[in-house]
Amino acid sequence: MKLYGYWRSSAAYRVRIAMNLKSLVAEQISVHLVKDGGEQHQDEYQQLNAQELVPSLVIEDNGQQRVLTQSLAIIEYLDEVYPKAALLPNAPFDKSIVRAMALTVACEIHPLNNLKVLQYLASELDIADESKTAWYHHWVKEGFTALEKQLAQHSGLFCFGDSPTLADICLVPQVYNAKRFKLDMRPYPNINRINAHCLTQQAFIDAIPENQLDAS
Amino acid sequence: MKLYGYWRSSAAYRVRIAMNLKSLVAEQISVHLVKDGGEQHQDEYQQLNAQELVPSLVIEDNGQQRVLTQSLAIIEYLDEVYPKAALLPNAPFDKSIVRAMALTVACEIHPLNNLKVLQYLASELDIADESKTAWYHHWVKEGFTALEKQLAQHSGLFCFGDSPTLADICLVPQVYNAKRFKLDMRPYPNINRINAHCLTQQAFIDAIPENQLDAS
Repeated sequence: MKLYGYWRSSAAYRVRIAMNLKSLVAEQISVHLVKDGGEQHQDEYQQLNAQELVPSLVIEDNGQQRVLTQSLAIIEYLDEVYPKAALLPNAPFDKSIVRAMALTVACEIHPLNNLKVLQYLASELDIADESKTAWYHHWVKEGFTALEKQLAQHSGLFCFGDSPTLADICLVPQVYNAKRFKLDMRPYPNINRINAHCLTQQAFIDAIPENQLDAS
Repeated sequence: MKLYGYWRSSAAYRVRIAMNLKSLVAEQISVHLVKDGGEQHQDEYQQLNAQELVPSLVIEDNGQQRVLTQSLAIIEYLDEVYPKAALLPNAPFDKSIVRAMALTVACEIHPLNNLKVLQYLASELDIADESKTAWYHHWVKEGFTALEKQLAQHSGLFCFGDSPTLADICLVPQVYNAKRFKLDMRPYPNINRINAHCLTQQAFIDAIPENQLDAS
């Protein structure tokens, strides 16, 4: 398998954690999201990923090379094909809780705060840095506040019970990102506790942006 | 089952289509997203849905009332518990393609253009109506352009082959929304063709916002 990613991309970070939890190894190929206007926009990468986003996972399926895109779709694929170290609980209702927590990050927080959106705010809307930071903080706060309530109900050592799931895989990169943008994390004791616990685990440690070969 | 929704919410619209495709019936409860600052922010609804978003699906699970949130998590739950009229193909790779198309809408387009974001742009950033429309169009164009390429490769009568899937369930409400915001749809022949075909199907017709009891 080949994983096209970038050290600081939250979505690539998610897939790295999932693969580590399952002890899956992929060749890591770095797509620099900033250099030369972004390598993800170059023709060669576009052929792989029409959305011009990382990550992309290239796999072999019945002898054919295939490309998987969208981090959550990639992780669900890996969880189905490599069921060991399951990333979702068994019961349908429990599964929906874990997916809902993951989607809180993936649909309500991250899309509003990724590189292309912050670039658009600055270049097209001419938003001052201060307002851009307020924008960033607003959506993370809103999402973390809701997540904090869900965690109070469902968490153990991890977001859902005592094993890592898709929810932790989404949460940890989002916390990393929030800290980079200097969000005050004090109002989120459950998130902090779970994030700290995750970061004692080798699968999570090995996936940290600064531990990637393309970190700079 | 009880479905808390709103006629114009894209996320609620998705769940209505999924339930119709599976011939599942739920009591429909309207949560007015605009009136009195938004009924989704009222205490009673917050207890149901900490994110203060529609939809929420209340189900009975082992004799207990349970609340499901996040449209995609709800639909995956329904697809697992009521497997008839499957909303995902069988093969893991095919499934990942359908999920990736659905997530293109759910993570790349919709989060940037829903009510709370447009409200923030106007109230907090004081963005002019014209720039707000440009913002809206920008993210839909970017997402639809990528989707159009994925559809060229995978679509039949529907987004993936000749049966409706999670991808169509996400696409149709997004097209409805784009038309409401007067996006020029001419560059997207596959999206238009599939959307038109979906809208010949009773499950999709019955889910149209204007066909809901709370439409105004």
